Amino acid sequence: MKTADLIIAAGDASADMRYATGFSTSDAYIWLRVDGKCMMLVSALEFDRARNERKKHVEVLRDTDFTSLVRPTFADTVLGAASKFGIGSFRVPSNFPLGIADRLRAGGVKLMAEDGAFFPEREWKDADEIRMITDALRLAEKAVMHAREVIGSCSVTKEGVLQYQGEIFTSEMLRREIDLILAAGGAMPTGTIAAAGIHAACPHDRGSGPIRAGEPIVMDVFPRMLKNGYWGDLTRTVVKGRPADVVQRAFDAVCKARDAAKKALGPGVVPGAVHRAAEASMTSDGFPTGRSENGSYYGFFHGLGHGVGLDIHELPHLNPRGIKPLRGGEVITVEPGLYYPEWGGIRMEDMVYITADGAECLTQITSDFVIE
Amino acid sequence: MKTADLIIAAGDASADMRYATGFSTSDAYIWLRVDGKCMMLVSALEFDRARNERKKHVEVLRDTDFTSLVRPTFADTVLGAASKFGIGSFRVPSNFPLGIADRLRAGGVKLMAEDGAFFPEREWKDADEIRMITDALRLAEKAVMHAREVIGSCSVTKEGVLQYQGEIFTSEMLRREIDLILAAGGAMPTGTIAAAGIHAACPHDRGSGPIRAGEPIVMDVFPRMLKNGYWGDLTRTVVKGRPADVVQRAFDAVCKARDAAKKALGPGVVPGAVHRAAEASMTSDGFPTGRSENGSYYGFFHGLGHGVGLDIHELPHLNPRGIKPLRGGEVITVEPGLYYPEWGGIRMEDMVYITADGAECLTQITSDFVIE
Repeated sequence: MKTADLIIAAGDASADMRYATGFSTSDAYIWLRVDGKCMMLVSALEFDRARNERKKHVEVLRDTDFTSLVRPTFADTVLGAASKFGIGSFRVPSNFPLGIADRLRAGGVKLMAEDGAFFPEREWKDADEIRMITDALRLAEKAVMHAREVIGSCSVTKEGVLQYQGEIFTSEMLRREIDLILAAGGAMPTGTIAAAGIHAACPHDRGSGPIRAGEPIVMDVFPRMLKNGYWGDLTRTVVKGRPADVVQRAFDAVCKARDAAKKALGPGVVPGAVHRAAEASMTSDGFPTGRSENGSYYGFFHGLGHGVGLDIHELPHLNPRGIKPLRGGEVITVEPGLYYPEWGGIRMEDMVYITADGAECLTQITSDFVIE
Repeated sequence: MKTADLIIAAGDASADMRYATGFSTSDAYIWLRVDGKCMMLVSALEFDRARNERKKHVEVLRDTDFTSLVRPTFADTVLGAASKFGIGSFRVPSNFPLGIADRLRAGGVKLMAEDGAFFPEREWKDADEIRMITDALRLAEKAVMHAREVIGSCSVTKEGVLQYQGEIFTSEMLRREIDLILAAGGAMPTGTIAAAGIHAACPHDRGSGPIRAGEPIVMDVFPRMLKNGYWGDLTRTVVKGRPADVVQRAFDAVCKARDAAKKALGPGVVPGAVHRAAEASMTSDGFPTGRSENGSYYGFFHGLGHGVGLDIHELPHLNPRGIKPLRGGEVITVEPGLYYPEWGGIRMEDMVYITADGAECLTQITSDFVIE
């Protein structure tokens, strides 16, 4: 009996599925690899579109061709395929749905959930993938340039609040300005961060309420291109008017750590070492990382970066525990940050491509902090 | 030993998780219900934001409080919680990730994947949910009204192709016009359909290329509101200029079937019967459903409708196999369609709320077909 590879997922929800077939759907379908041959088993509703949009090496078959049932469940279809091709066990991704897995096991086939990456090769990008990721990044840059212009055109009230076209300017308005550029460019804005002041002290706070002069504004923009599913990722922190001295020093420390990390990256480099060097650099610049008595973290308490491709967060992870050396071909973010509840946060994020002898920066937009 | 409910998923990816906690994340976290008490176990990075954004009955705990490990896996944390609370088995959603399930089972706890809905109560909406769904629908209507205006302002070349502001008008441009309105309204445009002519003969074709006068243009618009995760769903089919006679008759047949279905719906009604009546109505109007020799379907070959809420497609399903009577409180689409490879497709979709004695239409936008 053979072992085959199996995914059951929607093309829009599973990066592995999109990678396997190129076919985008909101509903789940089946992908199989048997004896090196790739096929997708789809419903009548998706059959014609699947044949037009699939990667060309993937054969498209009807789910009803594998059972005599008119309305087969996924398990029925897969068990039919197992019997037809002589498959005794399936390797599946770790996020394979348990409900279907239990039915398949009850039907007599073995299932092994892959512990690590289902397609390890996703970590190393080819030229087409670099181009699609760079397109998404250029769109994020366009959105941030627009945001800079909007902030630049704001006035400041005598209470120190930004005002745009006669209205108090809020994080919600800033996010909408960014998201409009993303949508116009054919991307899906999902969780754009436009967080100012103490909101920015929490790295995942999306931001809300009025924006004040002098406080750091973190813009983390990560569009996913609708046509191909690839992501870009960009963070810039800006300030309208004059920042407090500690904020300016934190900004300088973050940029210094980022630029040193970008220089350090290349094939053979261990991600954990680069993360620790960035943390040490910021600590020696006066910005330590730690945990306060109430249990909250401060300083630099997220990973230095992550791979980007069909998932916004994918392998490799650049964090203190990363021990596997880079190989070349990875596309990763470099995004040190500093977060303190007293004044907010700073994060500066570039994307780099690991080349044969170093790292090429894909990000082109300015890092300028102060907007007059 | 107790049985508890367990979800491990990202708030943005799992409607069940969003329903349980109200907390939106791109990374997965843990939700538990033990002895009727709901809690979420999150990382340090999400702790503060979770406490601000969660549903108020859900307690927020740190994932590190359940094990002595510094970087616990999900399985470590859940096994720690099982030991602390005396839990011997967990009920989980059918899409629970197999990789974690196998580790938990190896750790000595039982897991039962729910066959049907994990939260059956999601099928019946409360007033807040109706409001959030209606808000999303109003945004979809605004986008389609804008699309109608754009199509109305197009000229037609002597070859019969639409032209907008001096450029050939394509499905891609129409989709962008729609998506811009959605993004400006705070929604995520995911797979907007703007398919014209023979592209529209395939219900899930998103559309591409120039749009011609006289051919039906299917616009299926389904925004998901970023702030709360609820969806709206709307389809309108329009034509610029004069349609062929068969296209006009198909449009009339679809609208007649839709309006009859809306009248028929109410508590106690069996969805399958309403679907079959819609199909029969269109057949008797001259538009039969069937399968051609090459295996392709034609006519009306998708479900009449589906529930909408935190998922775009959720229970109840209105299809020929739906035998469970409606109860009242459901929000569902009613969207008959006709698809023929010779000339394209027509689909008209409204949303209705099943009340105590019938169905209230939530959709307000015009059904007008011809745009001069």
